[in-house]
Amino acid sequence: MEVNIAVAKIRKYATSTSGDTVEVTERPNGGVSVVLADGQSSGKGAKWVSTFVTRKVISLLAEGVRDGAAARAASDALFTERGGKVSATLNIFSVDMQTNTLVISRNNPAPVILIKDDKVHILQDECIPIGYYRGTRPCISEINLEMDLVALMFTDGIIHAGKRSNQPINVVSFIESLIEDEPDITAKKIADMLLEYAITVDQGRPADDISVVALRVEPSQNGPIRRMTVQLPLDNL
Amino acid sequence: MEVNIAVAKIRKYATSTSGDTVEVTERPNGGVSVVLADGQSSGKGAKWVSTFVTRKVISLLAEGVRDGAAARAASDALFTERGGKVSATLNIFSVDMQTNTLVISRNNPAPVILIKDDKVHILQDECIPIGYYRGTRPCISEINLEMDLVALMFTDGIIHAGKRSNQPINVVSFIESLIEDEPDITAKKIADMLLEYAITVDQGRPADDISVVALRVEPSQNGPIRRMTVQLPLDNL
Repeated sequence: MEVNIAVAKIRKYATSTSGDTVEVTERPNGGVSVVLADGQSSGKGAKWVSTFVTRKVISLLAEGVRDGAAARAASDALFTERGGKVSATLNIFSVDMQTNTLVISRNNPAPVILIKDDKVHILQDECIPIGYYRGTRPCISEINLEMDLVALMFTDGIIHAGKRSNQPINVVSFIESLIEDEPDITAKKIADMLLEYAITVDQGRPADDISVVALRVEPSQNGPIRRMTVQLPLDNL
Repeated sequence: MEVNIAVAKIRKYATSTSGDTVEVTERPNGGVSVVLADGQSSGKGAKWVSTFVTRKVISLLAEGVRDGAAARAASDALFTERGGKVSATLNIFSVDMQTNTLVISRNNPAPVILIKDDKVHILQDECIPIGYYRGTRPCISEINLEMDLVALMFTDGIIHAGKRSNQPINVVSFIESLIEDEPDITAKKIADMLLEYAITVDQGRPADDISVVALRVEPSQNGPIRRMTVQLPLDNL
């Protein structure tokens, strides 16, 4: 088996910087973590916040700190740094090779969507963004890494997409129809199509920064080869 | 224009851990950096070294420290931590949006290969691995980000591939023939094909950890959408 992870992101229309940050890092005991943070508001201030949060989480994960403790530490650090006046949402997907599980951490009102045994599960227990209060905790779920497991996390740009044009997105039914049409759909295609859908209902001008992370466990195609790709538009050239 | 970066890596045959580490991180003033380190020897000890080095470099780059200073700091930190007894090679590709350049740092006897204006350039000024001496400096090159620029870095697993079977690799002529056959070849295909070639001449059993990072500047296909993918084999499942 292999885990495929795909990230697709776009910034709010007419801003120079996305306030969302996604970073991927190796875990010291095997596996990778994907950290997704959305800083309050948009533009440079939001970018500072989301970078601060992801950097804190990644440096702790790299030292072997468990995900829940890293998320709490990031919350307390942001609370301390900005006096409880600035918040961020934070999600972590960790492929943990020691336990053979996907560890999902949420400090985000937006749900995480799982597809497991052909059923859609919505992780939406109430859990608040980090930074506003001392002692904020993440919601943690731990799922066995089984063939065809799909997991999807996103920032609230997805939740709010289309609201201005009265075409709000129903993410769950969109994903259900994607999987029904193409049961072997790749993580990359799920992420790309959900982002494309959100941009379309926002009439080509995203009303907010939007980031999507899709993960799928698939049959192994490459033996022990690891791969990574990055596609980076150079807007100013 | 957009920058496409592809990483392909495999560990030495019959080892549980690659001693090579590759991490990609956002730069605080725009762009991304790819950090590639190869820890001395193989297995867990080498992994500790390469993780130590990449983590140090990434945390400094994330604070806005320039690449050369980050590479020197990593060298001094490894020298201090291990008393000059352990070395690592270190390469950095940084896509710098402030200067619109690719900044290439080498602390590695292995060359970096550039293709620019259809000509192959080999960056092979002498520059030693980090960790053995106090004050080791990287070789730095700064190249304008122009359409069709290709840059390729790799660990010494590529240099030594095929030596056991008397089929040593000529990386330069291999890359030249790839580009001649397919002028629009993607970064992903360059990385995948070079790694595949190395594994083949190692008769399917890599004699060392091998990592390849390819970068290409291409026409923009996606407007301002950023993408990333990760493919992670789960060997123990």
